[in-house]
Amino acid sequence: MTDPDTLRRLAETIKARKQADPATSYVARLLHSGEDTILRKITEEATETLLASKEGDRQHVIREIADLWFHSLVLLAWHDVSLDDVLVEFGRREGLSGLAEKAARPAKE
Amino acid sequence: MTDPDTLRRLAETIKARKQADPATSYVARLLHSGEDTILRKITEEATETLLASKEGDRQHVIREIADLWFHSLVLLAWHDVSLDDVLVEFGRREGLSGLAEKAARPAKE
Amino acid sequence: MTDPDTLRRLAETIKARKQADPATSYVARLLHSGEDTILRKITEEATETLLASKEGDRQHVIREIADLWFHSLVLLAWHDVSLDDVLVEFGRREGLSGLAEKAARPAKE
Amino acid sequence: MTDPDTLRRLAETIKARKQADPATSYVARLLHSGEDTILRKITEEATETLLASKEGDRQHVIREIADLWFHSLVLLAWHDVSLDDVLVEFGRREGLSGLAEKAARPAKE
Repeated sequence: MTDPDTLRRLAETIKARKQADPATSYVARLLHSGEDTILRKITEEATETLLASKEGDRQHVIREIADLWFHSLVLLAWHDVSLDDVLVEFGRREGLSGLAEKAARPAKE
Repeated sequence: MTDPDTLRRLAETIKARKQADPATSYVARLLHSGEDTILRKITEEATETLLASKEGDRQHVIREIADLWFHSLVLLAWHDVSLDDVLVEFGRREGLSGLAEKAARPAKE
Repeated sequence: MTDPDTLRRLAETIKARKQADPATSYVARLLHSGEDTILRKITEEATETLLASKEGDRQHVIREIADLWFHSLVLLAWHDVSLDDVLVEFGRREGLSGLAEKAARPAKE
Repeated sequence: MTDPDTLRRLAETIKARKQADPATSYVARLLHSGEDTILRKITEEATETLLASKEGDRQHVIREIADLWFHSLVLLAWHDVSLDDVLVEFGRREGLSGLAEKAARPAKE
């Protein structure tokens, strides 16, 4: 269940759905609706994450973060960007110094 | 660089920073500032993702999604929830049907 | 059409709808659905304002800002706060100095 | 203090600041920083409104809605759109039917 490849498998499934029928695939429908529809979902799920957190319900927070990441992966697919590009970015920050945390923090801090 | 364990290593580093000194650790500072500060960062990074996408700059999109996920991991740490809980949620959706995409889509669709 | 009392009349109409039937009044339905539903609409309209602005369509920006303010008024009604309380806040900032702009700017700048 | 012209006076002050020195005027600085900076402020204030509401502090909600509207007026000024255009939009919705509430509700409902 805690297979580290879950996220990669999900990203690949989403990527494969770019060619699917919008009538039967939620991902194909989102990609077909266009960039703004995907962006609306990302800000919507960020707000849902916030409301779930204030509610203090951990299971709800987990589900909303899963939704937020799911739609992030759809946006990556829309831009023809792969999950690996995000992982490489994390690796790059990690590699900037011996201190993983310092390296991984946002550049703009 | 595209090590699948990058995200897990990042999540563990963030978790370990819960005990760090806020004066030297960005993550410790965020966790010390409290829930609202972390939630503000999540909605801020969602907005930055949107602006980067409209700008059409893929590298910028990648960096903002990395920032969005990074702060999602900080929120998980704040709630004492692990990355595995999110991966299990993705696995659960995947397992709901033989069709990974259908299973992984948001329940509320 | 450019009656300065338009906003006040709208605020009073919204307030009066607190007692209306959710089956026939959109405002009563929103107030009945609760705080989170109203808050979702506010962040949704803020995102729509952002997308309309990037699109560069002035009429669309105007409509989305009207929607954003409309739902702000619904939130004020939910909190039993009146439009006058917001206008008094603007007046207070204006009165803080002889320079209206300086006074009206956000306190937290 | 509850002068109905407060909002109009604020809108005119903001408009006049388009020619001001960014070094001394917050509004001129925002307008000079560009569209994305103003849009970030609007989504930031929407999030602050949400957090203030969940906190249950009415005075805080009033201040955040004032901030949200203030930055909405800055965006209108950036687009060379006047407050009257928003009031006309509210008037138009009101005029669509004899029922002010029905007319004023979002078109997309």
